[in-house]
Amino acid sequence: MQRILSDQLTRHTGGTVRIAGWVHRRRLLKSVAFLIVRDAAGLAQVVVTDPAVRAEIEALPEETVVEVVATVAANPAAPAGVELTDPTVRPLGPPAVPPPFDLYRPTLTASLPTQLDHAPVALRHPSRSAAVRVSAAAVAGFRATLDAHRFVEIHTPKVVASSTESGANVFALDWFGRPAYLAQSPQFYKQLMVGVVERVYEVGPVFRAEPHDTVRHLAQYTSLDAELGFITDHRDVMAVLRDTLAGMLDTVVDMAGAALATLGVTPPQVPAQIPEVHFTEALRIAGAPADEPDLAPAHERALGEWARREHGSDFVFVTGYPMAKRPFYTHPDPARPDYSNGFDLLFRGLELVTGGQRLHRHADYLTALAARGEPVEPYAGYVDAFRHGMPPHGGFAIGLERFVSRLTGTPNIREVTPFPRDLHRLTP
Amino acid sequence: MQRILSDQLTRHTGGTVRIAGWVHRRRLLKSVAFLIVRDAAGLAQVVVTDPAVRAEIEALPEETVVEVVATVAANPAAPAGVELTDPTVRPLGPPAVPPPFDLYRPTLTASLPTQLDHAPVALRHPSRSAAVRVSAAAVAGFRATLDAHRFVEIHTPKVVASSTESGANVFALDWFGRPAYLAQSPQFYKQLMVGVVERVYEVGPVFRAEPHDTVRHLAQYTSLDAELGFITDHRDVMAVLRDTLAGMLDTVVDMAGAALATLGVTPPQVPAQIPEVHFTEALRIAGAPADEPDLAPAHERALGEWARREHGSDFVFVTGYPMAKRPFYTHPDPARPDYSNGFDLLFRGLELVTGGQRLHRHADYLTALAARGEPVEPYAGYVDAFRHGMPPHGGFAIGLERFVSRLTGTPNIREVTPFPRDLHRLTP
Repeated sequence: MQRILSDQLTRHTGGTVRIAGWVHRRRLLKSVAFLIVRDAAGLAQVVVTDPAVRAEIEALPEETVVEVVATVAANPAAPAGVELTDPTVRPLGPPAVPPPFDLYRPTLTASLPTQLDHAPVALRHPSRSAAVRVSAAAVAGFRATLDAHRFVEIHTPKVVASSTESGANVFALDWFGRPAYLAQSPQFYKQLMVGVVERVYEVGPVFRAEPHDTVRHLAQYTSLDAELGFITDHRDVMAVLRDTLAGMLDTVVDMAGAALATLGVTPPQVPAQIPEVHFTEALRIAGAPADEPDLAPAHERALGEWARREHGSDFVFVTGYPMAKRPFYTHPDPARPDYSNGFDLLFRGLELVTGGQRLHRHADYLTALAARGEPVEPYAGYVDAFRHGMPPHGGFAIGLERFVSRLTGTPNIREVTPFPRDLHRLTP
Repeated sequence: MQRILSDQLTRHTGGTVRIAGWVHRRRLLKSVAFLIVRDAAGLAQVVVTDPAVRAEIEALPEETVVEVVATVAANPAAPAGVELTDPTVRPLGPPAVPPPFDLYRPTLTASLPTQLDHAPVALRHPSRSAAVRVSAAAVAGFRATLDAHRFVEIHTPKVVASSTESGANVFALDWFGRPAYLAQSPQFYKQLMVGVVERVYEVGPVFRAEPHDTVRHLAQYTSLDAELGFITDHRDVMAVLRDTLAGMLDTVVDMAGAALATLGVTPPQVPAQIPEVHFTEALRIAGAPADEPDLAPAHERALGEWARREHGSDFVFVTGYPMAKRPFYTHPDPARPDYSNGFDLLFRGLELVTGGQRLHRHADYLTALAARGEPVEPYAGYVDAFRHGMPPHGGFAIGLERFVSRLTGTPNIREVTPFPRDLHRLTP
């Protein structure tokens, strides 16, 4: 008999089925015992009245893997309106050692460090596995939207020869006796690939050796990168980003609706036109001094509240960041060259996406590096390519964990990252 | 006027259009000049008779980025049956420096090292960009097939605390002052996630510090990993793998048909039942001594020829590899415990996939490590999870670059890897 999943039980009412999963919980009452089995699709309630079967399940602690053959009976009071009766129960492995915290309670009560120390079992809690599914659906939506816009997926090197881009915060490694570094982003590669297929995206790990010990920083995270050529300016990039976010949220609803329900989350609408404010105006709204060079987290929160209040939007673009605070490859605003054609997207008051138009002329790269007092040599393989014809282009990078964390209202990004890596954590 | 791509020209015959792309080639004849423009969709032929326009394009070397507004005229002799006449040509950047090799010739004539040194331009050659598209489509097919089988995508750590699994061939790095290593595979994590959502896959980089300088090894490659629980044995894994390969090839045809045509490639059929031979039989077919512990490349080639000759198949499974040659987490064949429930899949005589059933009982892990004289401690976070109930499970890993290389008949894997990393190469 073919195994079925718990969400297929109703269509077998009256029949005999085989299910399998983990002993989620046992409730041993006087005259009856309930065995709750958890599988990939959810929970199934097994009713045990036979004393011999009851004796068997008494020897099967929570998390033991079992197979149950039983009859499906309608019971409006049971989860999903059905339960399994007259079961035979067979363990598929030895009795499990119960985890250090109860997985069957509505919320995980262990501290976050304890949960992370025991991630392989903590992730089995429905709230944690739901975040895994939301994350997978978000990435599927990212790709589906960009595929429909003729983007091509790429996979680029994660080990590079120069510690470029963000300066010091890189991880160094030994590459067959040569110094090398973990890539902080696929920025240079995705730009180079615009010269090949015009529009590219990459889903991959990026590494930041930043000594930040905050609820929103990880030392490895999953970056959703896109880059496109033949743009007029950063507004073309923002339009693609708007569609991408909408596609991600639509796909989360489609693919991970049950996970959203488990988490009690209703995804926000992405406005057809996401509100946008210029950096100078953003400072004013946030009540910051007009000469501030960047937005602090408190400013971002104030802007998030403003966007919700004034535009009913969970998203807001801040455009025109000062050139001084953006990477050297950023394209200036031709009308106000101290400001950039770069933007951030805030999601509920948190920076979720950074993007913008890039320089595309070789001479501009030389000028930009010289203006920062940086040598060209470490960037040679990247900068040289711009001599061979590159179109105006730009792109963006979405932090996956931040997206899921903000979407699910999770305070600490580590709660939606299966095996986080940070300043202190390198295991499991 | 909205830009259109070169593959949309025919539907605009008689109209005026705007295209943009790279100057692929100029042919300056006496009374007429031809400008071939390359964009993401292919090539477009622009006919120039106006002396003023001709003078302009004479100043635009190959690879300069241009925009052309012109009339679409039917011409059965031109590529795709249309050409562009009466053009205005506007450069979108400065004149390009011509690449060190001609991109407009049917094949790249530069040596492979020269191509790789200049990867950002070499990749623009239609043969190289076609491989990029085939690769993207193969990955899309991998995911689509597994999504349909209820697998969930995961992203796991690429930096780990212990140099485990394959022993010495790891890259070491400094993680905030602590020793750490690049992950050689997501093996342990995908197994742990079977305990969470039953079926998982990951597309991501893996790192092997193997000092192999061959046409089929890279130090970073893209691994297509899958793992599934509640299996009977490795045959359930092989069935999913068979469907996955068929899905990958179908999607390559659907999404990258033009790229296949550029490369002159007709994808093979995946038989409904891929032929399989036990390791002991494989040795006999390959003419190897019966006490060989593994298959050498020459043996794999002989088996590939045998599968094609005897079964008309480009694919063949070799099952039952000796336990001594498989990783410690491999499940033995219960009937012949010196042999494993592990398999390789050969594609045209090359090992493309390794997979099998894994141990799922905690005690078996302790026994397996002890038998190899290995301490448990470096594996603690992994092995401990098996105390908490894990179902019988198994999985596989496909090397993306090997798949594309074999599919396209490319001798060196570096020709289908945009920016390869190996013993000698860390740039661009």
